[in-house]
Amino acid sequence: MRHHGRVTLFTALTDHAPDPSLAHRRAMAEVTVAGPDGTPLAGTDVVVAQTRHAVGFGCIGFELMDHVNGRSSDPVYDNDFADRWLDLFNVATLPFYWGTFEPTQGAPRTAETLAAARWFADRGVTVKGHPLVWHTVQPRWLLDRPLDEVERLQRERIRRDVGDFAGVIDTWDAINEAVIMPVFTAEENAITPLARLKGRVETIRMAFDEARATNPGATLLLNDFDMSTAYECLIEAVLEAGIRIDRLGLQSHMHQGYWGEEKTLRILERFARYNIPIHLTESTLLSGELMPDHVVDLNDWQVESWPSTPEGEERQADEVERHYRTLLSHPAVEVVNYWGLGDRGMWLGAPGGLLRGDGSPKPAYERLRSLVKGEWWHAPTTLRTDDAGRVRVDGFLGDYEVSLPDGGPAAALRLDRAGEQTAQVRLAG
Amino acid sequence: MRHHGRVTLFTALTDHAPDPSLAHRRAMAEVTVAGPDGTPLAGTDVVVAQTRHAVGFGCIGFELMDHVNGRSSDPVYDNDFADRWLDLFNVATLPFYWGTFEPTQGAPRTAETLAAARWFADRGVTVKGHPLVWHTVQPRWLLDRPLDEVERLQRERIRRDVGDFAGVIDTWDAINEAVIMPVFTAEENAITPLARLKGRVETIRMAFDEARATNPGATLLLNDFDMSTAYECLIEAVLEAGIRIDRLGLQSHMHQGYWGEEKTLRILERFARYNIPIHLTESTLLSGELMPDHVVDLNDWQVESWPSTPEGEERQADEVERHYRTLLSHPAVEVVNYWGLGDRGMWLGAPGGLLRGDGSPKPAYERLRSLVKGEWWHAPTTLRTDDAGRVRVDGFLGDYEVSLPDGGPAAALRLDRAGEQTAQVRLAG
Repeated sequence: MRHHGRVTLFTALTDHAPDPSLAHRRAMAEVTVAGPDGTPLAGTDVVVAQTRHAVGFGCIGFELMDHVNGRSSDPVYDNDFADRWLDLFNVATLPFYWGTFEPTQGAPRTAETLAAARWFADRGVTVKGHPLVWHTVQPRWLLDRPLDEVERLQRERIRRDVGDFAGVIDTWDAINEAVIMPVFTAEENAITPLARLKGRVETIRMAFDEARATNPGATLLLNDFDMSTAYECLIEAVLEAGIRIDRLGLQSHMHQGYWGEEKTLRILERFARYNIPIHLTESTLLSGELMPDHVVDLNDWQVESWPSTPEGEERQADEVERHYRTLLSHPAVEVVNYWGLGDRGMWLGAPGGLLRGDGSPKPAYERLRSLVKGEWWHAPTTLRTDDAGRVRVDGFLGDYEVSLPDGGPAAALRLDRAGEQTAQVRLAG
Repeated sequence: MRHHGRVTLFTALTDHAPDPSLAHRRAMAEVTVAGPDGTPLAGTDVVVAQTRHAVGFGCIGFELMDHVNGRSSDPVYDNDFADRWLDLFNVATLPFYWGTFEPTQGAPRTAETLAAARWFADRGVTVKGHPLVWHTVQPRWLLDRPLDEVERLQRERIRRDVGDFAGVIDTWDAINEAVIMPVFTAEENAITPLARLKGRVETIRMAFDEARATNPGATLLLNDFDMSTAYECLIEAVLEAGIRIDRLGLQSHMHQGYWGEEKTLRILERFARYNIPIHLTESTLLSGELMPDHVVDLNDWQVESWPSTPEGEERQADEVERHYRTLLSHPAVEVVNYWGLGDRGMWLGAPGGLLRGDGSPKPAYERLRSLVKGEWWHAPTTLRTDDAGRVRVDGFLGDYEVSLPDGGPAAALRLDRAGEQTAQVRLAG
């Protein structure tokens, strides 16, 4: 709820208290199971199995682009990698960095990216495009053009890509790192001068307007790594300007060390008060040496070799668990994306993957899986209905299947509301 | 120039190039001097004297409150202090911290503050009130009231004080440190929760709206110590919200060391692009040991004794000169306020004054005076008019007096435009 003038713009602190029990993510449902004829099945064994989490457990899908497009240079590794990916995650982020997506003007890599997006979508994975506007990984051919031409090309690019992928990719990081965009100096690019001239808000408006106009149903994120008051101020600017942010993206690359529960919750509390669901868009935790504190732009840290270590892997497993537990404890968090499943090809060469370079799972992979597909997952369970045909389903919000033990008739059940409730399903098929 | 949509919001970088020659602050005027009858005075000696700088050289006037109100506990010190103050500065900042201005609800210190404001105004000094809204130095009696009452009282307070001082104080720091306001935790206060609920922009709107409604001609500043991208984002938010900022206030308390020319110019360049004239509202440079870098909130640094040292005084004098030269080199800078003329009673007990505790001038005082009333000042100078009654006046922008050497007829001359120009004066009186 947003109003101008003397009334409240943002929510009070108390609206979003974190709850480590995760009760806000669990349904306790009394489900009446009917047979194909509509009659409740009394005293009958049924199998209840969760099929999908409501919460998004995401990861970048960059590494699978070649695999999906039949260009794998290591099919054994990639096949195994794909299986592990799909076993843990239900949201994929695909790369739309303008400079690599369209290295030659007019020849965008639409086909192979669309193939990858469809591959994920066909497997029940929600796909997000990242990002539509950013100041790095920019095309060379954009440099030295007049700013009005840069703006026209940027707008056309958004419309083209959002349009080409609509129906497969309906979630976009509309703009990335706008806080630093107009004052970014590390790399010459055409977007910084544009953002400087237009101002951050109008640059953001450009991204959201073009994407929204092309795909009105799209979910559009504002995404940033800056967790300081700067991002708060920017969000307030965007809201004041009447630009609708569908989801708020918070990066959390922790190459310099795990934030810890206190800092994480403080950040969530600060950003939750805008009443916009939060995506942790880019989480990284290392299983090796940490990057020194004095590094400001993580890209400045260039090392020859950055190994994963046994002690580092134990620490990473603990921190991954703590990170995900903390994030899920906050009701505003809707999606948590990990930034790269494997060490192979990881950003900065960092040992931030959940799999080692050889594809074997680190402890963090097993730990996260034991949460996502263990403690937080309703594995197929045989339950006996009562005299009225009812079973109790206590589980994480998401999609379920109710079926007879011997197969045959089944029904889908969606639990999308926390707490006590009743539901009905009618087996069919 | 501000527009929405596809056009330019902010200025290009090149519009505000700094110029160390300060040519942008100097007039080169060919002045025709006429006698009382309107006839140009050919071949006549005239005295041209600057009487006021166009640029604001300001300082807080807090220390003179008691002196002005006849309550000085050290009249000799205060008399001398007042003379030195008036010899150097033409802009005074007076304290309107709510907690000390109105320690008992309904009993504001209006009379003594008004006496001080008038004392300065009578001496040709522009007076600014600081601040109308802030989260520290808050009244105890405001705590634990419902937020709607806090807001009502805050609004009433603004209207009362802006109204009571209109005509004497027409410049206000409308709101102070809004970047940190909603997340400030160091001190319990009633304004932080209000700012948190309303959001920064609506809190700023409250301050500006109430002040503007009460004194439509007032010059209203947004003031902050945060020189990061956060302040940029906040400014963009305020501009997007359609709130007119008359002047942009940048604090520059340099207790942890002089910024240096490069950082200073980078900051000015970043904030100048909003096309709002800049006031350096709070400048401090120490003549003693520096505060360690690790201190984040300067208020956390509590020391028993913090002496001014001979080496420190030499350094301070150099840095004061560099600071003022750098600031004036940038065309966007309109006012530079120093934060306390004397070490006695200085914020944090720091040796940041230009006078020592005993009132004697440090080298920095003499250095600054040699600029403000020396290099940058047109002292009374006898010039001979040419055959057409013309003299050349090359000097800093500001007010001048042209008179005959033996007194008698005189005329005021205002040079408010840089560069070559012509002007006419007619002596009278």
